[in-house]
Amino acid sequence: MTSPTASPALALDSEILARIRCPDLLTRIATPDQAASLIHDGMTIGLSGFTRAGDAKAVPLALAERAKRHPMKLTVITGASLGHNTDKLLYEAGLLARRMPFQVDDTLRAAINRGEVMFIDQHLSETVEALRSRQVGPVDMAVIEAVAITEDGGIVPSTSVGNSASFAILAPKVIIELNLTYSAAMEGMHDIYIPAKRPSRTPVPVVTCDSRVGTPYIPIDPAKIAAIVITREADSPARVATPDPATTAISAHLVDFLQNEVKKGRLPPSLNPIQAGIGVIANAVLSELNRSDFQNLRMYSEVLQDSTFELIDSGKLLYASGCSVTLSAPWAERVFNNIEAYRDRIILRPQEISNHPEVIRRLGIIAINTALEFDLYGNVNSTHVGGTHMMNGIGGSGDFARNAYLSIFVAKSQAKSGAISAVVPMASHVDHTEHDVDILITDNGLADLRGLAPRERARQVIAHCAHADYRDLLSDYFERACRERGGQTPHLLSEAFSWHERYTRTGQMKP
Amino acid sequence: MTSPTASPALALDSEILARIRCPDLLTRIATPDQAASLIHDGMTIGLSGFTRAGDAKAVPLALAERAKRHPMKLTVITGASLGHNTDKLLYEAGLLARRMPFQVDDTLRAAINRGEVMFIDQHLSETVEALRSRQVGPVDMAVIEAVAITEDGGIVPSTSVGNSASFAILAPKVIIELNLTYSAAMEGMHDIYIPAKRPSRTPVPVVTCDSRVGTPYIPIDPAKIAAIVITREADSPARVATPDPATTAISAHLVDFLQNEVKKGRLPPSLNPIQAGIGVIANAVLSELNRSDFQNLRMYSEVLQDSTFELIDSGKLLYASGCSVTLSAPWAERVFNNIEAYRDRIILRPQEISNHPEVIRRLGIIAINTALEFDLYGNVNSTHVGGTHMMNGIGGSGDFARNAYLSIFVAKSQAKSGAISAVVPMASHVDHTEHDVDILITDNGLADLRGLAPRERARQVIAHCAHADYRDLLSDYFERACRERGGQTPHLLSEAFSWHERYTRTGQMKP
Repeated sequence: MTSPTASPALALDSEILARIRCPDLLTRIATPDQAASLIHDGMTIGLSGFTRAGDAKAVPLALAERAKRHPMKLTVITGASLGHNTDKLLYEAGLLARRMPFQVDDTLRAAINRGEVMFIDQHLSETVEALRSRQVGPVDMAVIEAVAITEDGGIVPSTSVGNSASFAILAPKVIIELNLTYSAAMEGMHDIYIPAKRPSRTPVPVVTCDSRVGTPYIPIDPAKIAAIVITREADSPARVATPDPATTAISAHLVDFLQNEVKKGRLPPSLNPIQAGIGVIANAVLSELNRSDFQNLRMYSEVLQDSTFELIDSGKLLYASGCSVTLSAPWAERVFNNIEAYRDRIILRPQEISNHPEVIRRLGIIAINTALEFDLYGNVNSTHVGGTHMMNGIGGSGDFARNAYLSIFVAKSQAKSGAISAVVPMASHVDHTEHDVDILITDNGLADLRGLAPRERARQVIAHCAHADYRDLLSDYFERACRERGGQTPHLLSEAFSWHERYTRTGQMKP
Repeated sequence: MTSPTASPALALDSEILARIRCPDLLTRIATPDQAASLIHDGMTIGLSGFTRAGDAKAVPLALAERAKRHPMKLTVITGASLGHNTDKLLYEAGLLARRMPFQVDDTLRAAINRGEVMFIDQHLSETVEALRSRQVGPVDMAVIEAVAITEDGGIVPSTSVGNSASFAILAPKVIIELNLTYSAAMEGMHDIYIPAKRPSRTPVPVVTCDSRVGTPYIPIDPAKIAAIVITREADSPARVATPDPATTAISAHLVDFLQNEVKKGRLPPSLNPIQAGIGVIANAVLSELNRSDFQNLRMYSEVLQDSTFELIDSGKLLYASGCSVTLSAPWAERVFNNIEAYRDRIILRPQEISNHPEVIRRLGIIAINTALEFDLYGNVNSTHVGGTHMMNGIGGSGDFARNAYLSIFVAKSQAKSGAISAVVPMASHVDHTEHDVDILITDNGLADLRGLAPRERARQVIAHCAHADYRDLLSDYFERACRERGGQTPHLLSEAFSWHERYTRTGQMKP
């Protein structure tokens, strides 16, 4: 990681003057260390950043440095994941007492699983609701990346909105990281809408993917801006994995299914708005749509990835709404250097709105998310390896799966060269219950679980989703569970986790 | 069960003429058997009825009789549970191939658990969404209880709305059971709002518990009304259980907690609108509110029970919105014979709206639901005894728990004279994940899980919710799981269900 260039001693060049349009604020330009000195032991801080996009970069790094001299413990809340090894550095500096609501860092993950950092894994639409009502928090300081500050002190975010707006509104003090790398032409791409306080809250007025219902900046009192740090470092690029035969097979099953739904009149030819979780499989699925006949597609999602812009470029996708843009290096160059060309096709909202149950239900989203494993009856584990060890977090999958028109989960049918089956007798941890799962897809096939009772679901899952190597084992478990125990959802509790236990013992789920 | 009196041969007395205000429809008056003859093998029928209120009574009974002569298999969809042993009679007549989305009948439950009837357990807000988009169904015939038919053929429902409106709108034919027992003065108590088709769906305009946003009747083309059956039988009365020391203790913990939330400024003195699941504990909790200092309460719930009307009578409750009224015999007499006195204080909506994620999130509901069991980390089982056998169904608890301001689950700390602990190492079935559970209450105490990581949650649950007899056993499991396995959510998979297994073997969860 290279250290962000930042210094108030720099001449206030015309670029900075153009971006800080509230002249009173020019005096608040500070070094990262000066800004970090405003953060004290015991504080709860809200950092911008969602899927490693638009994350606060310089101040957390300076904070980690300061902690070597001034040990402290913080509660760190973000939108979702941070880039630049920030979570690693904060952890290694001993700073992280509590962390919410999502992370993807290897070092932090290990610390969480050792019980060293208290990690609160939340539905991503809910964090700011909990803060706003002071059920969690309060946030003492917000650190928000921006591309500009308006005449009134409004903050124009960069590549993500995430929870930044509510952090800035709720915190008594705000540090801004003004990132000169991202074009000031991003202004106009964001739509900041914050639900009113209850009991006078009114409907969220988003009725289409491209509804603009708020302001293009985060409105705050400029007196709260405690420091402005100038930075020039780009987001960490998305990790790109090339599609493989399994992801291609999954994508093909999905496209077939959607085409069939259109034929049956259950979906219009342009489909319903699409949400796709972050990651290789979801990205592959969207790329496959590019080779399909669908036209005039729309997205209402969290993170907009390479595939979103591929679909825009090919003319397939009319509009994409999200709360962050996370791109590989080549796509970042292409998109962010031509933001004017994309600005009218994309909109970035607070994650509370991109993931809002109200809007998801209203728009009738097709939600496509990734499962770690799922069971015979369609209960999905999205988070816990072996039922105990956190991977990343539930993210927005629960916001979408519960309220979507179609809730689809995808997984490769096996992992670790066949040592692990994604389809297991009983999910070792449940993030999405059978009630929230309509369609399950693996490279092996697609199980349509809509309107089916659990015993019927099991037969579909075994026949269509399980890898051939595990099919007979699953059938055997299911048939014995029906015979020996029965019930709406037959299980043999003494064997339900035997595959997971065997894997721990032998490195193989197979006997 | 007494057989409903019903006959077209009855003189068309003034009461009937006054209630069927569309004169063309008078010719459609039929016997229950005539009406039942319109239902054929293989059909999907939609029956009115929610928590045994406003259920179709005469036609299902006649159908069960007919099936003795004309065997047939049906898919039966309701709002929620039916009264009058209807599910039992339909099952015993061999009629039930498939049943959704909720039931409470002992005979049917046993058949479901034997795998004889395919039971689809759904979030109650979602059934009509699935029907409307033809992901399930279509409904061939609706059978709807009403207290009147308007000049234009609009149906004025009786004591529940449930899914009746969408059944009647979606089905090509409708049978009406006009129930003369319930006062025609119920007209005006219902508010029928149906979300528009996508993609032009707009916000559900409910912004307060007493928002009236629809019509007081179900608007349908009167040409679809295939038969009108006159009935006089009341709803099955609610089963009332007197509060016991455990339910009283649970209620007291809840009231203390709410008072404290008000003190901390997290809730206004009149609280947020309350939802309470059906059943003894929820009823006891609401009764306890009657002895509290809270004023100007409001409910936004599914079923309105005795306790709702106690609170209205005492002046504590300003307004209650639900989708059904289910009362004990004495309260039914008091309320339904004085409906004018209550009509302005209550509103009955389609269950899609009473349970709508959009409205629940907007209003900031305090959701109080009952758990069968929950685990160390706050995962809740609401449906499956021993992880396999269906009790009733998830009902609306998932609609509320996911989107509420506060999601509270209550349970007695033990059952069967202590043989069963409600707090277990791992829930044997998960309906509500840790992400959706804020507060857990037993007679033993209250665990506030907000903002806590799983290991912290476990310590709260053990200390406050577990019965003293099980506390050390739970601590032992938890400490060993942390030590031997670790992780975000420590478990020993080989022991996770050992309590359930032991209970099956010995009749005792304790070793």
